[in-house]
Amino acid sequence: MTSFSADRSYARELDAADPLAGFRDRFAWPGERLIYLDGNSLGPLPLATQARIAEVVAQQWGAGLVRSWDRWIDLPRLAGEAIGELIGAAPGQVIVCDSATINLYKLACAALDARPGRNVIVTDDDNFPTDRYVLEGIAAQRGCELRMIHADIDEGVTASAVRGAIDERTALVSLSHVAYRSGALADMAAITEVVHEAGALALWDLCHSVGAVQAELDAAGADLAVGCTYKYVNAGPGAPAFLYVRADLQERLRQPIWGWFGQRDQFAMGPQYRPAAGIGAFMTGTPQIIGTVAVEEGARLLGEAGMRRLRAKGVALTGYLISLADEWLAPQGFALASPRDPGRRGSHVCLRHPEAWRLSQALIRAGVVGDYRTPDRLRLGPAPIITAFTDVWDALDTLRGLAADPSSYTELQAEPARVT
Amino acid sequence: MTSFSADRSYARELDAADPLAGFRDRFAWPGERLIYLDGNSLGPLPLATQARIAEVVAQQWGAGLVRSWDRWIDLPRLAGEAIGELIGAAPGQVIVCDSATINLYKLACAALDARPGRNVIVTDDDNFPTDRYVLEGIAAQRGCELRMIHADIDEGVTASAVRGAIDERTALVSLSHVAYRSGALADMAAITEVVHEAGALALWDLCHSVGAVQAELDAAGADLAVGCTYKYVNAGPGAPAFLYVRADLQERLRQPIWGWFGQRDQFAMGPQYRPAAGIGAFMTGTPQIIGTVAVEEGARLLGEAGMRRLRAKGVALTGYLISLADEWLAPQGFALASPRDPGRRGSHVCLRHPEAWRLSQALIRAGVVGDYRTPDRLRLGPAPIITAFTDVWDALDTLRGLAADPSSYTELQAEPARVT
Repeated sequence: MTSFSADRSYARELDAADPLAGFRDRFAWPGERLIYLDGNSLGPLPLATQARIAEVVAQQWGAGLVRSWDRWIDLPRLAGEAIGELIGAAPGQVIVCDSATINLYKLACAALDARPGRNVIVTDDDNFPTDRYVLEGIAAQRGCELRMIHADIDEGVTASAVRGAIDERTALVSLSHVAYRSGALADMAAITEVVHEAGALALWDLCHSVGAVQAELDAAGADLAVGCTYKYVNAGPGAPAFLYVRADLQERLRQPIWGWFGQRDQFAMGPQYRPAAGIGAFMTGTPQIIGTVAVEEGARLLGEAGMRRLRAKGVALTGYLISLADEWLAPQGFALASPRDPGRRGSHVCLRHPEAWRLSQALIRAGVVGDYRTPDRLRLGPAPIITAFTDVWDALDTLRGLAADPSSYTELQAEPARVT
Repeated sequence: MTSFSADRSYARELDAADPLAGFRDRFAWPGERLIYLDGNSLGPLPLATQARIAEVVAQQWGAGLVRSWDRWIDLPRLAGEAIGELIGAAPGQVIVCDSATINLYKLACAALDARPGRNVIVTDDDNFPTDRYVLEGIAAQRGCELRMIHADIDEGVTASAVRGAIDERTALVSLSHVAYRSGALADMAAITEVVHEAGALALWDLCHSVGAVQAELDAAGADLAVGCTYKYVNAGPGAPAFLYVRADLQERLRQPIWGWFGQRDQFAMGPQYRPAAGIGAFMTGTPQIIGTVAVEEGARLLGEAGMRRLRAKGVALTGYLISLADEWLAPQGFALASPRDPGRRGSHVCLRHPEAWRLSQALIRAGVVGDYRTPDRLRLGPAPIITAFTDVWDALDTLRGLAADPSSYTELQAEPARVT
């Protein structure tokens, strides 16, 4: 491989050498040419998922009717195992259920109950909104203190910042593995160690890392984790989330929503709630089946590609994007708003520009879908399983063309985005 | 119409006069002949839903990708309005989100917070397991008393039983509108009045009534309600549930799970949680889109049939079933385990028999799907939108044949059922 060049032929060379290049054809795409750099918000539709949903709807629901519960009942665990393989979790620790918001609530409550006498929850002020809001609500309801680490908006949270924020009153530290805006990748192992030294529990949000970054939960000693599946896992809009509870904590922690799917011997319908053994105790109500099969399919497709290869490609794609931005966009007033160190970066990159909102809209009009993040960030997510290096080249080439010609975007309305 | 006769020709007469007879063809059915009396557990697949799911998957997710959120964002409200029309709720009071278990948790917590100084939750000992477990959990976590009304297992809960169980310490009374086992229909208006006299809030579970019985929440003065959508609403396995909060309570009640979909000005992603105006404040995380469109389709199909006609047919179907059971099955040792008064009955009927489990399995083998409920109930649910009177005749004729010949079922294993 030759060294970096801003010529498109270099992107073609990288594509030719990409062992994952064929995976793009495993997805459905719109008829028109589209460069999709928003798989970090809503991943595209795997063809296998489309076929499986059609089969589940027609055959299992339509023809099998209620008899199909015999096979559906195990789906949350099967999908959880498939997710577990992506995030370094040995079997029996991950289950697919509810939403990331609900799962965060359940596990944060469980963690606080497991640390009686401690009344501080720690997160960071740049954590994803639903994380901050859920923790704010729990703190208000329980009379706890919600302590905010001030995160560097571009570089994320460090272990030393966490060390400075926690003490013997801290019950729970809840952070995102990859920051939703900057893409900053937290050092899970180092931070978890700091949290454990203080006697607190670590709850990781993997929404922006699962399927893009190797989380290695078991190796990091993480206690708890949640994540959504509609981003890099490509399970579709509002597909169910997952949760992870480390094996040795499952009997000690109890989540607050005691539903019949978390009940031992569920169909005896007995008088008292007795939590199921193992990870099943962290389920609540009836699982959404169509969404759960989509999670299983999406996770298996990523497993086939392999997290090691996906991570290597993500590093290469974002590195290439940054190199082109340095060359073309920095002179036009763009600044990198993500870590430059690939070891500190997930699989999306933010570029800061005063006209980020209008440029994001002009890009969409030009067939390049990224997104906008407050206050002045253009967020570009080259998801490793679907993105070619030539996509990155074409996207940045389009962007430099738009930026060089303000008349291409200045007539667009300034208004807030509506998408995660 | 001639008066009741146990001859099959009478069932054919009833079918010929049924204004809803054509709706059966709006659903997908298995290739083999099947009499489906379990729509009260998992409703069948509407053809319109199958087409709409395929379109949402292929066009909106596959081709539209993240851009489709512009249309998805309003779905929980639109589906909620469609449900509202079935349960007597004026617009703006129902939203589709999460599961019935989660929604019950959210609203029960909100109700308790709205009644400070009161620490008693009242339900009945025959309420659906997830309801009892959720309330048991909340009571344990808050140090409340969970007071159980002893319900007549066949006749359900009466207003006088509720009056005897509540007092000035009662914050919340949470009951099912239709009992999951007996099908007993509670008098929502009378019970709600009793609850209000004591200064408590009434939370109704409509899982076994929505789409089968006219709930008339607004007219009854109900405070809160939840319900699932995979039974009579025919929205598919694990489709999202709904919740109802009466308009004047929406600003005063606050649910405990503060997610980003319940946030005012969600995409500003601001630092503090500020609940959205109206019913939107009762959402939590990202809604499951495929399930929500299935709820909308299922509810619209019921709306087209009309709740008045559906209820009238439900009364006629269950009445006919009971008449045949009296004639054929009572002499064989079956006893009715549901209210005989049609005004006190939902749209399913239980028959008690010592061999109920084996008979339910033998029925399935003979092409009649009902289900079993502990300890000795055969539950038969002739959902009004899909069931013909001849289906009821054929099902009961099959059952009397099996019951008359114990060798047809005695070799079957005795074991618990696995289905809701």
